[in-house]
Amino acid sequence: MDIKNVTVAGGGVLGSQIAFQSAYCGFNVTVWLRSEGSVGRAKPKFERLRTIYLNTLEAMKTNPQAYCRGLAPSPDMSAEEIDQLKARADAALNNITFTLSYEDAARDCDLVIEAIAKNPEEKIAFYTELAKHLPEKTIIATNSSTMLPSAFAQYTGRPEKYLALHFANEIWRNNTAEVMGHPETSKEGFDKVVTFAQAISMIPLELHKEQPGYILNSLLVPFLSAAEELLATGVADCETIDKTWMLATGAPLGPFRILDIVGLTTAYNIGIMDPRSKDPGTVQGKVAALLKGYIDEGKTGVNAGEGFYKY
Amino acid sequence: MDIKNVTVAGGGVLGSQIAFQSAYCGFNVTVWLRSEGSVGRAKPKFERLRTIYLNTLEAMKTNPQAYCRGLAPSPDMSAEEIDQLKARADAALNNITFTLSYEDAARDCDLVIEAIAKNPEEKIAFYTELAKHLPEKTIIATNSSTMLPSAFAQYTGRPEKYLALHFANEIWRNNTAEVMGHPETSKEGFDKVVTFAQAISMIPLELHKEQPGYILNSLLVPFLSAAEELLATGVADCETIDKTWMLATGAPLGPFRILDIVGLTTAYNIGIMDPRSKDPGTVQGKVAALLKGYIDEGKTGVNAGEGFYKY
Repeated sequence: MDIKNVTVAGGGVLGSQIAFQSAYCGFNVTVWLRSEGSVGRAKPKFERLRTIYLNTLEAMKTNPQAYCRGLAPSPDMSAEEIDQLKARADAALNNITFTLSYEDAARDCDLVIEAIAKNPEEKIAFYTELAKHLPEKTIIATNSSTMLPSAFAQYTGRPEKYLALHFANEIWRNNTAEVMGHPETSKEGFDKVVTFAQAISMIPLELHKEQPGYILNSLLVPFLSAAEELLATGVADCETIDKTWMLATGAPLGPFRILDIVGLTTAYNIGIMDPRSKDPGTVQGKVAALLKGYIDEGKTGVNAGEGFYKY
Repeated sequence: MDIKNVTVAGGGVLGSQIAFQSAYCGFNVTVWLRSEGSVGRAKPKFERLRTIYLNTLEAMKTNPQAYCRGLAPSPDMSAEEIDQLKARADAALNNITFTLSYEDAARDCDLVIEAIAKNPEEKIAFYTELAKHLPEKTIIATNSSTMLPSAFAQYTGRPEKYLALHFANEIWRNNTAEVMGHPETSKEGFDKVVTFAQAISMIPLELHKEQPGYILNSLLVPFLSAAEELLATGVADCETIDKTWMLATGAPLGPFRILDIVGLTTAYNIGIMDPRSKDPGTVQGKVAALLKGYIDEGKTGVNAGEGFYKY
């Protein structure tokens, strides 16, 4: 493992999780933020993560359901082993430095994980400035869900050491990391990032080609759209559709439970990217109207307490 | 429950299961078959079903994994209760009469379940001849997976008492039954079939509109196609795609495990209905070529011992 010093750019939901998990797993972490205001907003997220890690580990001593794959290699840990992990979680913040400086973010850095806002101009400005300071060895990975690495490779000054490393929310529990290069990414850089993902207790999922939506959203979007269409055209209600899927495939959740977790706003934003959704007479238009109706009533999913179901 | 006498037309895989399950649940069952040859082919299927039911019930005494929802109302049955169910399974064939005669098939029949070959001309000939003999009360349900009831309603002489009741294979285990009318189906007829489905230990899944592929295939086909496209375009291997889905959604099976169960030939036949599959340069063409490659090697899925995975 050549990677020791990791810089995470961005202190949002995912940035803070990636940084904390990396520190928990023993890496030296620098969190680069844009402004003092960003630092003020990020620090409570890190405190909250420490509490979540400590509470979850404590719960794992007595409750097998509490086990999170990102926190421990096995659900069968002794109380003493879990106490050692708790000590690691408690001390993780000691491995994290916050900085506003590109120079500090770049200094002796082995891997940059970019998790800044979904704004192409901001990403380009970040890569361009950072590239001036980075050592040659540094690999850059983007966590972007929706933008392809080939769109930004030229701004990094190291296209062969640039690729995507895409995390799921709550990475200590949902510990998958999709690894995806662009056509110029070197195998060496790709493999190093796979190894790093394993070292922070992620399960790397390797893509051999650039694919918008990676693997997961490439499967989820058509699946969820099909379910939305059945509901929007009045074929069946969401309970029946969910029950059909769960009974036939043994899955614990049907599409509308998954939609409630994903959030109806996200589903709506994906749906309206299809120009047919502008026409209320099309199936896509009916789906958009259905989702908008829920969103307008504040029923945006689990986080709002109600979506297709109540929580 | 107005339904006592059930005629099942067809002694194929599903016809025999529907007839046996109905008899197991106490209905008087007549199996209509086209020829003496059909009777000869059907009878061993019924003997095999009796053995499966008896063995599964016996296994349920000691192995909770053996529980099949269609065989018992709860997994927590005493050995004595299971022995009573075994007696019912053993005697089920006594409730079944085989006939080649439309008159016998129609006499005092409350419900006909049509499970004959996927051939529109054969179905039309069957309905037209049967309608001459059926009492007015009789409801007709078709198990067809791919043809819509509205295409045949006019030949039944009772469009308001005609609808679809669509079973899954191995109905004693996969006990869902999609109930779907056409625009002229009466609510009364629909509701009677829902009640009947429950009476033979199925979980009815109600569709409020005609929908090609019902609910399940309307979800499965786009989901499986998306997975096939990722594999056929070289984005990732099937193990990685399956793992991604299972880890992200908690599902017990990924799309390629499901494809192996569905069978690659079925997936291929669905795929080539899309005209784009004729062009080897399209994604659909690549999917068709991929599936054909497996099929040509005899790797058609679980039943062949190998598909995307070995069994």
